[in-house]
Amino acid sequence: MLEKYIKAALKENDCSLVLKNATYVNVFTHKLQKGDIAICDDKIVGIGSYKGLKEIDCTNFVVIPGLIDGHVHIESSMLTPEGFASLVVPHGTTSVIADPHEITNVCGMDGFNYMVEASKNVPLDIYMQLPSCVPATPFETSGAILDGETTKKEIKNKSAYGLGEFMNYPGVLACDSDVLKKIEGALEAGKMIDGHSPFVVGDSLNAYLSTGISTDHESCSVEEMQEKLDKGMYTHLRVGSYTKDLSLVKAITKDNYHRVIMCTDDKHCADIYYQGHLDNALKKVVGAGLDPITAVTLATLNCANAYNLKYRGGIGPGYFADIVIMDNLTDFNPQYVIKDGNVVASNGKALFNIDKRYLPKEVLNTIHIKDFTTDDFKIKLKGTKANVMTTISGGVMTGLEICDIKSKDGDVDIYGTDILKMMVVERHKMTGNIGKGLIKGYGFKGGAMGISVAHDSHNIILIGDDNDSLLKATNVLKENGGGLVLVSKKENKTYSLPLEIAGLMSNMEPTELVTKSQALFDKAYEMGVTKDKEAFFSLMFLSLAVIPHIRLVDKGLVDVFKFDFIPLDA
Amino acid sequence: MLEKYIKAALKENDCSLVLKNATYVNVFTHKLQKGDIAICDDKIVGIGSYKGLKEIDCTNFVVIPGLIDGHVHIESSMLTPEGFASLVVPHGTTSVIADPHEITNVCGMDGFNYMVEASKNVPLDIYMQLPSCVPATPFETSGAILDGETTKKEIKNKSAYGLGEFMNYPGVLACDSDVLKKIEGALEAGKMIDGHSPFVVGDSLNAYLSTGISTDHESCSVEEMQEKLDKGMYTHLRVGSYTKDLSLVKAITKDNYHRVIMCTDDKHCADIYYQGHLDNALKKVVGAGLDPITAVTLATLNCANAYNLKYRGGIGPGYFADIVIMDNLTDFNPQYVIKDGNVVASNGKALFNIDKRYLPKEVLNTIHIKDFTTDDFKIKLKGTKANVMTTISGGVMTGLEICDIKSKDGDVDIYGTDILKMMVVERHKMTGNIGKGLIKGYGFKGGAMGISVAHDSHNIILIGDDNDSLLKATNVLKENGGGLVLVSKKENKTYSLPLEIAGLMSNMEPTELVTKSQALFDKAYEMGVTKDKEAFFSLMFLSLAVIPHIRLVDKGLVDVFKFDFIPLDA
Repeated sequence: MLEKYIKAALKENDCSLVLKNATYVNVFTHKLQKGDIAICDDKIVGIGSYKGLKEIDCTNFVVIPGLIDGHVHIESSMLTPEGFASLVVPHGTTSVIADPHEITNVCGMDGFNYMVEASKNVPLDIYMQLPSCVPATPFETSGAILDGETTKKEIKNKSAYGLGEFMNYPGVLACDSDVLKKIEGALEAGKMIDGHSPFVVGDSLNAYLSTGISTDHESCSVEEMQEKLDKGMYTHLRVGSYTKDLSLVKAITKDNYHRVIMCTDDKHCADIYYQGHLDNALKKVVGAGLDPITAVTLATLNCANAYNLKYRGGIGPGYFADIVIMDNLTDFNPQYVIKDGNVVASNGKALFNIDKRYLPKEVLNTIHIKDFTTDDFKIKLKGTKANVMTTISGGVMTGLEICDIKSKDGDVDIYGTDILKMMVVERHKMTGNIGKGLIKGYGFKGGAMGISVAHDSHNIILIGDDNDSLLKATNVLKENGGGLVLVSKKENKTYSLPLEIAGLMSNMEPTELVTKSQALFDKAYEMGVTKDKEAFFSLMFLSLAVIPHIRLVDKGLVDVFKFDFIPLDA
Repeated sequence: MLEKYIKAALKENDCSLVLKNATYVNVFTHKLQKGDIAICDDKIVGIGSYKGLKEIDCTNFVVIPGLIDGHVHIESSMLTPEGFASLVVPHGTTSVIADPHEITNVCGMDGFNYMVEASKNVPLDIYMQLPSCVPATPFETSGAILDGETTKKEIKNKSAYGLGEFMNYPGVLACDSDVLKKIEGALEAGKMIDGHSPFVVGDSLNAYLSTGISTDHESCSVEEMQEKLDKGMYTHLRVGSYTKDLSLVKAITKDNYHRVIMCTDDKHCADIYYQGHLDNALKKVVGAGLDPITAVTLATLNCANAYNLKYRGGIGPGYFADIVIMDNLTDFNPQYVIKDGNVVASNGKALFNIDKRYLPKEVLNTIHIKDFTTDDFKIKLKGTKANVMTTISGGVMTGLEICDIKSKDGDVDIYGTDILKMMVVERHKMTGNIGKGLIKGYGFKGGAMGISVAHDSHNIILIGDDNDSLLKATNVLKENGGGLVLVSKKENKTYSLPLEIAGLMSNMEPTELVTKSQALFDKAYEMGVTKDKEAFFSLMFLSLAVIPHIRLVDKGLVDVFKFDFIPLDA
């Protein structure tokens, strides 16, 4: 193997592929350079003047290293790892640090192991972090528990690249012994620990970092991000479906950019298909004012450095030939994508197939709910004022507003208001739990909508203005094994999309899933969802009790700042 | 443990040590910052406003991370790892990447294992690279051979941090199968591979790098260093006893400095004692025009990044408390050195003792030579012209000059010239080999001088103008188990310093060794060694057949460019 590389570099043997006349982004020394890029099998073996068995003329293009997503939940694409790869690789993504936090919260280690196995047959390096927060908080009923002992054991395995984002920062700061056991296990195993610490600054940030947690992708302001960088944290600049932290571009300077990483965190299949993946993120951050070479470095070398991905993230001899040929450094349209020396995509089309898929029975049939009646969806208030959730556009934050609420027949009367009922139905253990709340400003009218993707425990989130429709939506999701549902009272019709893998993902062809989900989104907008929101996907973070301010879970309403339940009555 | 850190960071528990009012170099974001640096046991737990059980007022100082030497041969200090630590730690060095290439060439894995064990009881992190070139070249007789198979086996061990500098670059480029086996072994074990590639550029550099070798400390020009950086190599800026690559400071820019590392490579005990270690290197590179924050980053974070030293190389919560309190960023005089949270040196004095030393019999009594007579030191030329070695001041390079040489009684007649005899006596296997050569411009007169430190196989190097003295010097080294020797014919006296450990190192108190070696250096200058050379130490690289141009080894004269023997007759 090495002999072949050496002889190709010395022009004594053929190079398998040469990118002729390349202008490429040198992320090591922050400049554009010119030369032929010579590839032998899976490795770059030379920069200079080379001939190859196959050649691509790069005269009119700009060549950059394969893109690396520093933090992504593949499940959020609603695709399997195979489907995900088939969509993101044509956009130039060649490696990802994945945290299968969602499926593990539903299926436990069966879910994690499924993701590991399903990642093996795609031309995309998927480094799998062992989820650290299963469940994420003590507030929810999740499908599985990975306690300290289990984590300590599992983190030693080769399949666990590191420990996934430690969302339970209150647990860390409170020295919860089971929480600390997980971190200790990762440190003992020599594995890296990802963080997740919105608004954690000052002494609290000191304490969080003192445990060895080393990254963050949740900075809420330029100042917060800069404090984290100053304190030695690698920080991710996130450009996903729900969180586009473009204002944080201002935090990045010539002096700190080596410690900033690009990530998407969560991006659903329709967004990937229509907008792109990290290529789109590059376009956006460059549009927001970041210089293109810095932007490319964030999405390549910096991530490889932070996560110790050997021989990845740069264009140089000895590096794996993960390369993207872009049209230019403004639009970032990938012309060719090369993974381990093979051309795996051109002009946005994958040149590989994903016919060989792994799908064990352990991740199917995961929706377990009691039989409910319409009365179960009544909300009984003691008084006339309620703590109502508000949504804030352009992110996943929520607000709290105290509103006057009328009641009638042992139920709230929301007719004529812009307030909807919100329900979180437990779906793992048939507890019958329904968390009940109210949400303002969502716009939807005339039925119910529901989804079995509900970070982080993935119970069922429903909103609606009619108890019959809420019940119907629940039952459809039960039948479908999870997914998305819309019930139109007026039409007396339901629209649904099954997500049969853990209630999170579909094994459908990715393009079919894109089309079908888009039809459902359109219907949701037709039924009144305001255009400032991602239809459906804006719902699925409303249970996420690690991001401020107010969340609804199956056990009730949570104030994240207080890290405790609050009553619906205000 | 984690609970203690968290509570100290949150001020719920005591910090063990606080550096009050610190102005510190933030290597993460390239700036000077202010704050109290809070330490709990071995870790930094906070930056902010803190109180500690013990406090050091840093108002008048500048605080920097503990210094990391990216490439050092401890044996070149002539000290054991314990003695080395006692000298370098007070100078602010808290971690080193060590390559015990010298002792391994003498004692094989016994030598390597000795270095590992002897490194365990000192407040200095010594990451031990497994030597890759034992022997370094096929030209010499070494004390041991670590072939491909052995390397493949040993590199898997935890004690081998990585694979040491791959000096045998001709072997790599020639695809020598045993050489490539070593590299493959390191790659399979997931270990990093250090390089050593003077003058290797262009396609040759491509080929060398294509194997996965990732560092270099042998750039011979600004252009060479920049090409190496451009191609993704980490390059060391070396400031040692023999090689002070200060002209390479010009190669370092704001855009590439993250890929540059500081190292000393070889520095003998007297230089460390009188000049310093990396503190001195910082002073010199800043004197040469590098900005101080960049200089500190080279000697700390960059090395930690390149070698994946976890939680080392920076001042931030969660990092190990390896810290140096300097007087300022011009003189770099260490006031206090903190290692893993303990104050281990102040005002240049070690606050730890090295009474507990490890010294197994396997590394003693390593000089094995035949009985020679004065006639064995005769040099018989066929003609009147010889290939004579010249030394070049300010480095370890040598030159070649063809000189007219007279002969008399079957021996060269060098009387009245500035040419000396040079002999390399094999000392491992009693082969009786004596490599013979001539050296010009060394200045020494009236006897012989010799040393059993002779990179890389550590045979005995002698120079002199008298065969009796050459024989006497040989015999003294035999009796002493190696070391340094001077024979004055006029005085009929010998002066010597034993290096009883592998003929390379002494177990003497470091300060005693410094004094005794200095006395010997003074005597050498008294006997005529020109002041532009390091007395004795300029000798020990004259066998190093991996650095151009001409070298003498026990089997004869080598032209490094040709990578082959040449005759003494020209």
